[in-house]
Amino acid sequence: MKVKRGTWTAAHRRRARRLRLVVFDFDGVFTDNAVYTAEDGREMVRCSRSDGWGLRRLEKLGVRLLVLSTEENPVVGARCRKLKLPYRQGVSDKLSVLREITREAGLDLAEVAFVGNDINDVECLRAVGFPVAVADAYPEALAAALYHTRRAGGQGAVREFCERVAEAQETKRP
Amino acid sequence: MKVKRGTWTAAHRRRARRLRLVVFDFDGVFTDNAVYTAEDGREMVRCSRSDGWGLRRLEKLGVRLLVLSTEENPVVGARCRKLKLPYRQGVSDKLSVLREITREAGLDLAEVAFVGNDINDVECLRAVGFPVAVADAYPEALAAALYHTRRAGGQGAVREFCERVAEAQETKRP
Amino acid sequence: MKVKRGTWTAAHRRRARRLRLVVFDFDGVFTDNAVYTAEDGREMVRCSRSDGWGLRRLEKLGVRLLVLSTEENPVVGARCRKLKLPYRQGVSDKLSVLREITREAGLDLAEVAFVGNDINDVECLRAVGFPVAVADAYPEALAAALYHTRRAGGQGAVREFCERVAEAQETKRP
Amino acid sequence: MKVKRGTWTAAHRRRARRLRLVVFDFDGVFTDNAVYTAEDGREMVRCSRSDGWGLRRLEKLGVRLLVLSTEENPVVGARCRKLKLPYRQGVSDKLSVLREITREAGLDLAEVAFVGNDINDVECLRAVGFPVAVADAYPEALAAALYHTRRAGGQGAVREFCERVAEAQETKRP
Repeated sequence: MKVKRGTWTAAHRRRARRLRLVVFDFDGVFTDNAVYTAEDGREMVRCSRSDGWGLRRLEKLGVRLLVLSTEENPVVGARCRKLKLPYRQGVSDKLSVLREITREAGLDLAEVAFVGNDINDVECLRAVGFPVAVADAYPEALAAALYHTRRAGGQGAVREFCERVAEAQETKRP
Repeated sequence: MKVKRGTWTAAHRRRARRLRLVVFDFDGVFTDNAVYTAEDGREMVRCSRSDGWGLRRLEKLGVRLLVLSTEENPVVGARCRKLKLPYRQGVSDKLSVLREITREAGLDLAEVAFVGNDINDVECLRAVGFPVAVADAYPEALAAALYHTRRAGGQGAVREFCERVAEAQETKRP
Repeated sequence: MKVKRGTWTAAHRRRARRLRLVVFDFDGVFTDNAVYTAEDGREMVRCSRSDGWGLRRLEKLGVRLLVLSTEENPVVGARCRKLKLPYRQGVSDKLSVLREITREAGLDLAEVAFVGNDINDVECLRAVGFPVAVADAYPEALAAALYHTRRAGGQGAVREFCERVAEAQETKRP
Repeated sequence: MKVKRGTWTAAHRRRARRLRLVVFDFDGVFTDNAVYTAEDGREMVRCSRSDGWGLRRLEKLGVRLLVLSTEENPVVGARCRKLKLPYRQGVSDKLSVLREITREAGLDLAEVAFVGNDINDVECLRAVGFPVAVADAYPEALAAALYHTRRAGGQGAVREFCERVAEAQETKRP
């Protein structure tokens, strides 16, 4: 299936309606994949204020959210706490954690979406029912995804995907 | 009325001449809607140095200014104090505060402009006489606005609208 | 004279050869005109690492350099000290200071260039022999300038103008 | 030889296969050549999270890595330590250090690549077997390079070159 950036079809809608858990990579998805480094090695990241609206809307529909990051720096947790998102960081084997969390939640991987941007996301993208890559993802991640967001990471990509899923789920409810 | 980004007509000028109060959302209007998060959760925002000139020019014409933000982080207040702008932040119901302030000032909502960028601005945009969205606003905000600034949020959008209004008001004075 | 961005003619070269002093505005010239505001109101600015090379090259030719800024925040001085540039900040009347410094240096305004980006630079631009605006300057500054840099403020505009002047002065020397 | 940005030929592959050491300039290569200056003069730089993957891949192939910077500010070291890269900063004569390190490693300059972006990189670029400039490098650096990365400095240029070299070296191994 040829994926065209930002194009959302009936097939996407069907997958979106099944989702009970959306898992996000952090850097490159919530951020523009940049890190700001200070003289003492402390880091900052640049995120979008708009993402919160999409996340809250999905939560109201009962969809669980999780951030899963390889990065060990505390900025990941700092941003997730602000967004009131559960997160696991410093994870070297994302796929194992993804499987474990899906099983613990009593879900099937077909009910899970993963949103990523780089090669270390490919295993997770291949495992879930709805694999998503941000517009400016690396080719390996794009190739493994069924939806490419119109917006880039850190520029509203999270908000965009959340809204797409929310619209799909809201219209299925009678 | 079809709105074309940056296009300012005689109808805009007439509305601008009536303005006695301009209310601004903060994130996405004074900023590019990004937040910079540090390891300890502290935040920074990116604003434009150019906005101050426009704000001062409007004030000299006797137009009141106010920033109204849902965001609770102190960066909002920090930037507003630098710009010597009155502000209310951590506001969950912007419309109530907007109505209250308009009434307290002895004004009519027809004499008020609101400049916003996202869905939580739509109610305020619909309530005022001159609703404005920045160039890179979300579709819901753009749809509710009568003027779309040519410049994006944090890139001089505030300055641009202030100058448009000031020009309109200056030419009406004999 | 119609000015085309980045176009450097024989007339520009002649003016450049006369220069003994180059005065720069700070925000929007050394920076992209953005300010990063932290929770405690402290500010950061974004500058280009490349500017230093151009400034040093002009200094070697005996051209004096000065930064003249209305802005009171200490970031202006912090960046100028790093670049080893003399500066005056918190200046409300730039033109007076410009005239004073020119006179004290025993120079004529025809031997001075001013590089600016906004309306508060217009008076200085009109006073000097070689008025310059950065590529993304406000219309008022562009209209008062004889050269528009190809690069935007904070993106190498300072370096670009310094190199143009240096080349002009180096070729005049036998 | 005319170099076209991002174009990687059989000649590039041959040079890449010989590489035993890759030396990088820092500002403009690992960063977008910007510096963020705070009120107290402290600096931050903006780097790409993606570079780490490329660097690790090259290291696994036994290629040595080194960052060589004129800049004295501690941000250079801070970022290099995070990336677990050896570095030398505050270096005024890059070429001498480059020669010294090459000799100490028992290598020939034909087995060395240098990745730079500005005029102070030109001597090193001319000395090594594989000179590389980032997409947004200054003309002098571009002119001295045999490969121009498709991506700009701080936007994945380091990752891109590392992956190109790794692919070349991996395919040579039987």
